[in-house]
Amino acid sequence: MSRLDVVAIGNALVDVLSHESFEFVAEHELVVGSMTLIDTPTAERLYAAMGPGTEISGGSAANTMAGVASFGGAAAFVGRVAADQLGKVFAHDIRAAGVEFSAAPAAEGGDPSGRCLIVVTPDAQRTMHTFLGASAKLGPADLDHDLLARAQVLYLEGYLWDEPEAQEAYRVATRVVHEAGGRVAFSLSDAFCVDRHRDTFLELIEREIDVLFANEAEITSLYQVDEFDTALQQVNHHCEIAALTRGAKGAVIVARDEVHVIDAAPVPHVEDTTGAGDLFAAGFLYGLTHGYDLGTCGHLGAIAAAEVISHLGARPETSLADLAQPLLG
Amino acid sequence: MSRLDVVAIGNALVDVLSHESFEFVAEHELVVGSMTLIDTPTAERLYAAMGPGTEISGGSAANTMAGVASFGGAAAFVGRVAADQLGKVFAHDIRAAGVEFSAAPAAEGGDPSGRCLIVVTPDAQRTMHTFLGASAKLGPADLDHDLLARAQVLYLEGYLWDEPEAQEAYRVATRVVHEAGGRVAFSLSDAFCVDRHRDTFLELIEREIDVLFANEAEITSLYQVDEFDTALQQVNHHCEIAALTRGAKGAVIVARDEVHVIDAAPVPHVEDTTGAGDLFAAGFLYGLTHGYDLGTCGHLGAIAAAEVISHLGARPETSLADLAQPLLG
Repeated sequence: MSRLDVVAIGNALVDVLSHESFEFVAEHELVVGSMTLIDTPTAERLYAAMGPGTEISGGSAANTMAGVASFGGAAAFVGRVAADQLGKVFAHDIRAAGVEFSAAPAAEGGDPSGRCLIVVTPDAQRTMHTFLGASAKLGPADLDHDLLARAQVLYLEGYLWDEPEAQEAYRVATRVVHEAGGRVAFSLSDAFCVDRHRDTFLELIEREIDVLFANEAEITSLYQVDEFDTALQQVNHHCEIAALTRGAKGAVIVARDEVHVIDAAPVPHVEDTTGAGDLFAAGFLYGLTHGYDLGTCGHLGAIAAAEVISHLGARPETSLADLAQPLLG
Repeated sequence: MSRLDVVAIGNALVDVLSHESFEFVAEHELVVGSMTLIDTPTAERLYAAMGPGTEISGGSAANTMAGVASFGGAAAFVGRVAADQLGKVFAHDIRAAGVEFSAAPAAEGGDPSGRCLIVVTPDAQRTMHTFLGASAKLGPADLDHDLLARAQVLYLEGYLWDEPEAQEAYRVATRVVHEAGGRVAFSLSDAFCVDRHRDTFLELIEREIDVLFANEAEITSLYQVDEFDTALQQVNHHCEIAALTRGAKGAVIVARDEVHVIDAAPVPHVEDTTGAGDLFAAGFLYGLTHGYDLGTCGHLGAIAAAEVISHLGARPETSLADLAQPLLG
């Protein structure tokens, strides 16, 4: 069996994006920059209110795998869709992005495929309302142990942690990958997600996680501190590698006695910050699985994040391998 | 003899500041943000062209000592002035700031007191033309060994490195302070200054310097690299502590296996960036000589830098002890 660079497990979602005003945000009492889980009626009500949208396959970890593939890496994605139109769109798009995706769609009659309604405000911030549907029903039975054992790195998103079955799937997958000699990476995903699961996340990071991805809001929430630097001092003793993203302030990579301060890559116009963290992780993981030093891994993350925020949607539109060429030679 | 927190050796200068347009900069072929050494005729020509100015005692290391004193620290300054009006202004101002200053003025008939003509452009950048005068004539004979032996930290500015006599004074002072159990801090001062003295600075840092201060342009010039992070990796093996300032991007403190990423303190309006680095050093050194951890030292530096860039002139106008009170309790 060929080796895979990264295998991700996460929510399989199709994003529905629309540009909306701050008045829309106020009227619907949205918290700009947050991710809220919604039920079917809320999803239908919000979707009806949103203006004409763009449908783009998304899902945080799935976006990351599309990014790894765009760099030329070998990536696979594990996630659940239903046997419906959106499920077909998701499966088509992720395969078209060059990512291995073999999960059979869930049986008909169950929950429909998950979707994420994304409102993009004039400040290029996104506010997400996620209806997880079939996506959240992932459990240990959905795991292909042979696929997992091929992974250099297993990448897990915090978003999927809400369901006990998904938690169990993460534990099983982590064990399989570690036993096969791979490393396990984890994204904290969202500050509210961290708030819901702080204690279990802390324990998970301590015991199982080799590479942690978090943005500033997430890492300060994890340790319940005000200052980025205070969180930085804590995470340095907590896992092997931490990649902490700070938006326009760039990123900080910590690995015990090694710290890299990486500037954000220049972006002429920020269109939509959706996927910035997902794509930073993509660049970083591509670098890590191809033997680059941590500073270069961080630069690759910054290049990928800059590409994805320069357009609407959370998957790259330009070959990341081409964009990385000046750096990697 | 009572212990001193910091003793600095540097140029004793009076700053003459005026706000000028970019047209003025173009007409006089000034390099915005640089420091140029000038002779007497050039000083007279430029001073005549400048609009109405504000005279404020300056000198990089002298500003830093005024900052240390404003935090409540015990600071002394060693530098040369002439027996003229500007020399009296300098001596009055630094003593009024609470800094010990005992150097006898140079004999009459020699060079006049040094001055720094500072043009502040609408982008709040400063362009400096320095006539060193008596200031540059500092030598080993000007050192009070008893004073130096009282210092927890000796602070040296790179600006003074141009004259062989001053270099010899630095070597003697460094030896006296190290023998008395103190530490030696050094500021790279200016990227052009680094360019003039790169090899000797590198050797000095390697052998004698315990705490290095530099901004981004200076530290990348020192190692002749393009990226801040590349310089960061090098300095980490080069001296005990390095405090690297990055303007609005904040600062990074490195001490072997400890790295702190410190955000810039908020400033409602940036009036004049003159003295930002000098005052960052003041806050950092106050913290270091009062037993605070390096993260807190960095925050104190950021607080002091924010105060000084909010007004014209390079010495604090508000008590830094008061501004630090919420942090230090």
